[in-house]
Amino acid sequence: MEVTRQNFKEALPKLCEAVEEADFIAIDGEFTGISDGPSVSALTNGLDTPEERYCKLRKHSMNFLLFQFGLCTFKYDPTQSKYITKAFNFYVFPKPFNRTSPDIKFICQSSSIDFLASQGFDFNKVFCSGIPYLTQEEESQLREQYEERRGQMNGNGSITYTPNSSMSVNHIPEDQRAFIKTVEEKVDDLLKNSEKSVDLESCTGFQRKLIYQTLNSRYSKGLHVETLENDKKERYIQISKVDDEERRRREQQKQQREQEELNDAVGFSRVIRAVSKSGKLIVGHNMLLDVMHTVHQFCGPLPEDLDDFKEVTMSVFPRLVDTKLMASMQPFKEIIHNTSLGELHKRLREKPFKSPQTECPDDFQSYDTSSEQLHEAGYDAYITGLCFISMANYLGTFLTPPKSHIAARSKLLEPFYNKLFLMRVIDIPYLNMCGPDLQPKRDHVLYVTFPKEWKTCDLYQLFSAFGNIQVSWIDDTSAFVSLSQTEQVQIAINTSRYAESYRIQTYAEYLQSRQKSTNTNRRWASDGWSDTSYGAAAMTTTSGFSHSRQHSMKRSISPSLEEQNCNADSSWTHYCSAKKIKTDGDGSQTHAGVSGSEGASSWLEQQTDEGGACLGQDQEEAAPDASSTSQGKRNRKHKKRTSDASETTPPLLFDVPQVW
Amino acid sequence: MEVTRQNFKEALPKLCEAVEEADFIAIDGEFTGISDGPSVSALTNGLDTPEERYCKLRKHSMNFLLFQFGLCTFKYDPTQSKYITKAFNFYVFPKPFNRTSPDIKFICQSSSIDFLASQGFDFNKVFCSGIPYLTQEEESQLREQYEERRGQMNGNGSITYTPNSSMSVNHIPEDQRAFIKTVEEKVDDLLKNSEKSVDLESCTGFQRKLIYQTLNSRYSKGLHVETLENDKKERYIQISKVDDEERRRREQQKQQREQEELNDAVGFSRVIRAVSKSGKLIVGHNMLLDVMHTVHQFCGPLPEDLDDFKEVTMSVFPRLVDTKLMASMQPFKEIIHNTSLGELHKRLREKPFKSPQTECPDDFQSYDTSSEQLHEAGYDAYITGLCFISMANYLGTFLTPPKSHIAARSKLLEPFYNKLFLMRVIDIPYLNMCGPDLQPKRDHVLYVTFPKEWKTCDLYQLFSAFGNIQVSWIDDTSAFVSLSQTEQVQIAINTSRYAESYRIQTYAEYLQSRQKSTNTNRRWASDGWSDTSYGAAAMTTTSGFSHSRQHSMKRSISPSLEEQNCNADSSWTHYCSAKKIKTDGDGSQTHAGVSGSEGASSWLEQQTDEGGACLGQDQEEAAPDASSTSQGKRNRKHKKRTSDASETTPPLLFDVPQVW
Repeated sequence: MEVTRQNFKEALPKLCEAVEEADFIAIDGEFTGISDGPSVSALTNGLDTPEERYCKLRKHSMNFLLFQFGLCTFKYDPTQSKYITKAFNFYVFPKPFNRTSPDIKFICQSSSIDFLASQGFDFNKVFCSGIPYLTQEEESQLREQYEERRGQMNGNGSITYTPNSSMSVNHIPEDQRAFIKTVEEKVDDLLKNSEKSVDLESCTGFQRKLIYQTLNSRYSKGLHVETLENDKKERYIQISKVDDEERRRREQQKQQREQEELNDAVGFSRVIRAVSKSGKLIVGHNMLLDVMHTVHQFCGPLPEDLDDFKEVTMSVFPRLVDTKLMASMQPFKEIIHNTSLGELHKRLREKPFKSPQTECPDDFQSYDTSSEQLHEAGYDAYITGLCFISMANYLGTFLTPPKSHIAARSKLLEPFYNKLFLMRVIDIPYLNMCGPDLQPKRDHVLYVTFPKEWKTCDLYQLFSAFGNIQVSWIDDTSAFVSLSQTEQVQIAINTSRYAESYRIQTYAEYLQSRQKSTNTNRRWASDGWSDTSYGAAAMTTTSGFSHSRQHSMKRSISPSLEEQNCNADSSWTHYCSAKKIKTDGDGSQTHAGVSGSEGASSWLEQQTDEGGACLGQDQEEAAPDASSTSQGKRNRKHKKRTSDASETTPPLLFDVPQVW
Repeated sequence: MEVTRQNFKEALPKLCEAVEEADFIAIDGEFTGISDGPSVSALTNGLDTPEERYCKLRKHSMNFLLFQFGLCTFKYDPTQSKYITKAFNFYVFPKPFNRTSPDIKFICQSSSIDFLASQGFDFNKVFCSGIPYLTQEEESQLREQYEERRGQMNGNGSITYTPNSSMSVNHIPEDQRAFIKTVEEKVDDLLKNSEKSVDLESCTGFQRKLIYQTLNSRYSKGLHVETLENDKKERYIQISKVDDEERRRREQQKQQREQEELNDAVGFSRVIRAVSKSGKLIVGHNMLLDVMHTVHQFCGPLPEDLDDFKEVTMSVFPRLVDTKLMASMQPFKEIIHNTSLGELHKRLREKPFKSPQTECPDDFQSYDTSSEQLHEAGYDAYITGLCFISMANYLGTFLTPPKSHIAARSKLLEPFYNKLFLMRVIDIPYLNMCGPDLQPKRDHVLYVTFPKEWKTCDLYQLFSAFGNIQVSWIDDTSAFVSLSQTEQVQIAINTSRYAESYRIQTYAEYLQSRQKSTNTNRRWASDGWSDTSYGAAAMTTTSGFSHSRQHSMKRSISPSLEEQNCNADSSWTHYCSAKKIKTDGDGSQTHAGVSGSEGASSWLEQQTDEGGACLGQDQEEAAPDASSTSQGKRNRKHKKRTSDASETTPPLLFDVPQVW
């Protein structure tokens, strides 16, 4: 069901009913962009801590607009062994509903807009008919305004005088006297004749002020004065004769009208409130950005601190499942190799998985999964739900006896609760929404600072003696370099001690020095993200090339990851061991294998697989390109360098023959 | 003529022809918003200096997108006494034309988008079919890339190997060996069989790199290797057998293709270049923002300094006329009371003006001025041109003998050249694009700083002894207060000397202290414009009320304004005196009366007249609303205050009875 401003009022009760009866609810959002920083890759450093990642997304993704919200409810009908689905595709736009409402500014990213355009996105629908919304605070402020005005009205006798300006008028300026005189004459006429009301000509705010003031002092009762707007949005004053009863009736009407206005203004936020109130399981695919945008746009500003964000989010959506994370966990990760939504959906229609049977009521749009409509939020929400059901039911095959239907509230699903996929973080698969995050050991990681002329190839040259390394750029003058063997760390540090052009610290030292700097925000301000970065970006050469492939995954599991075995689910142990999953760690760990050493390596492979995505994107597919763009820039620099041999080359850590 | 990506190539020669033959060219732009600051009113302080205004517009308006560009050429046909008009309505969008092009981010302002939506603006057309563009620097960079690649190709023998990454590969990783082996087999097959080429499967950037490297080292000549993209935007490699001639042919083809790509990428900027090259007179209505956006988006980043901006602009558009400014100058200002484009156009169809006769060739869209299509850029450009002609011809009636047609290059129009209307500046009517700006005397202006709790009413109370004052807010804790009598300034300063809660300086002192602070940018950073200000704005109450009405215009003309009588045009004197125009100054002044004392006061009235504009807006009509919104906020504060009498009230400058 497509929902715009035009049919929102009719759709809302249907939505509420669907939410109330649902077993679970799948959601998806479309945004006007991903990152207002220099590149999406800068948003997703492979060695971000969860705090850093949250901080970056909050700062550089929230100024985009979530302008299409897909929601699909799933209710299991045991008599037919079928899910009844109700899909809603909401167009959302912060239309200023009157002169006093906030005038939201949002950023658009050309590549995202162009991608959505290529997918047939209807921008006219969103901008002309998008449903407005308010956060809770904005609603309170609006309500307060209405109440304040009402209070004044009541205290003010019959004339509903709303002081429109802080500047009182104590005399009528010369040039306005004739104008006010004609108004007075019109009112005198009205009081004498049989008309019920008179409309004055449209006039300026100052003139309206003078009129209110004059009427207030000259006529004590029996007049109702109201400012109205004509078709041309010009304001004019209507003066009516009223008795007490009539006045009460009018005031009641006005109150009702205001309440309706208020409801209209809260608009789409009422959908989110209904979903939140239901406490139902919310399923999304790679849903961190969806969740952040939803909270930010419809509930209230995101807190600075990650722990506060988790708390707020859990109070809005107490149970979340991310299908991208689920597909990357045991027992799925070994049989699902591409976790992008479209590919996942395809995979889950093949053995050993089974497509669920679904049916949708007549008044709802049924999606034909054979003709893909990816990137329409309603469709994406629908197939996200299908993916969840397929994976959930697959878990049932491990039970004795096997079960073909696993309910959304099954204990089997608990290991997947409230863990949100973390894009492109090498060693932390997910954000743990209901507790502390995994803390991977990063003692093979070096923090390297160097002159801003350096490029990736200079770092490779510097560390050429160490075999395969992995470079994660932080900004123009620093990067993380992951060595394949932790033993090499000390050698590198020792050798660098006398270097002048660059500096090497261990990851632990880096963390320490960060904690010392009291203002952590400063880090973000100095990392190359400038205020005007969403202006013209620099031209760059690019490639789809990904460094991470070179990383040969020799390092062992970090103990701190292994220790995170809280919330162990015994039913989980069952099918983990049944599948003889190859992990160095304990099969019963709730993160279901992904954080084991094997897990970390296949994790990475998976991310690399997605590196070949195309130019167009949503939040899931966007990053690989931008990542290559930023690499491209460095590549171009590199090319320039090699063509000019007179430039100084960076020192080698060791005197080894230069192979490339 | 509506021009999108689809018909741009056909339209460009027509545009160039129209520009070349034109007598003058009218332009208009539509933007995605006006101000990314807290409010538009903050963008337009009534006492901004030209430098300050430019600085604010550059910082807070340029991140919006100019996405519709209207251009209408006017060529006079003396045989028919008619203008031949050719109107173009360009949709403009920075579609990333390939992976390496800049990914522009731009801001949208909900009220502007909503307004355009209400006017029937086609967002799908702009986002799906908008013409791309590049600045000159972006074009150079792109050209450089192409040339660099070509150079490498030539030096590289037959294999056109473009190093896609800075990281060379010196060995093939274990897991890729089988893959590379199959590629080698395919190439060996190709060399043996009669096929001309073979397409490899799509693969990752890393794999492509390995393929290039392998082929480069194993096969010396006779192979052409190229990376192509399939329909799904996946990249794959095509390997072809070629002899020398075939190779040259292919390279030539490629070069042609690249040149075309480059032209496509430069796109709409070619229109601006053609217009600029023609040196023709450019007419716009309230065109400062149009000019700034045009230079910024299609030529290059705006310089920080106003004088540099003037220089750059004059090099792009050597002659400009702003019809809003023209209509506000002598001899028009006394007979034209509303200078907004729609109203001006209406007024100029009545006596003493005459509508010009126009005709448009068959293949161009003819606009019907009786059914308004305001806010379509092509239409707005068209009627701006009509307004210009009507006003220009009106000047001819002052000649002896009178002339009914005044050419665009007539000396009569020189007084209007290169002066751009300055919105809502009280005492500086225009930005002088080809010289220093007017420097009004502001010795009746006070710079007042106070606690952030203060509202407009507190300032009125403070100065209640001085009669009418005018408040121009700067930020939460400072404002300019204009007194009606300069003599009061010293009294106010003396009285404030012992005040603790507020501080008063003269305007001269304020200027001095600003010059002292070396970093003028800091002022903008601390004026309440925060980075995240385009997030949710605060809710505000509002009114159409404008303070400036209260200002009773008693102050005399500033001598420095009167002294600006350079470039006097004797033909001007003629009709100024013929019409017995009431000015205190010299009728021969080139700014045609607007800067005289009479000029300054009617100037202000005019601006106030526009204060009643409706919610919808373009850059012309936008500001009044936002201005009232920001006042509304202060009003709301005020209301709270008055309802809570226990709050401390600000001190009075004098012990006068409190009238309000």
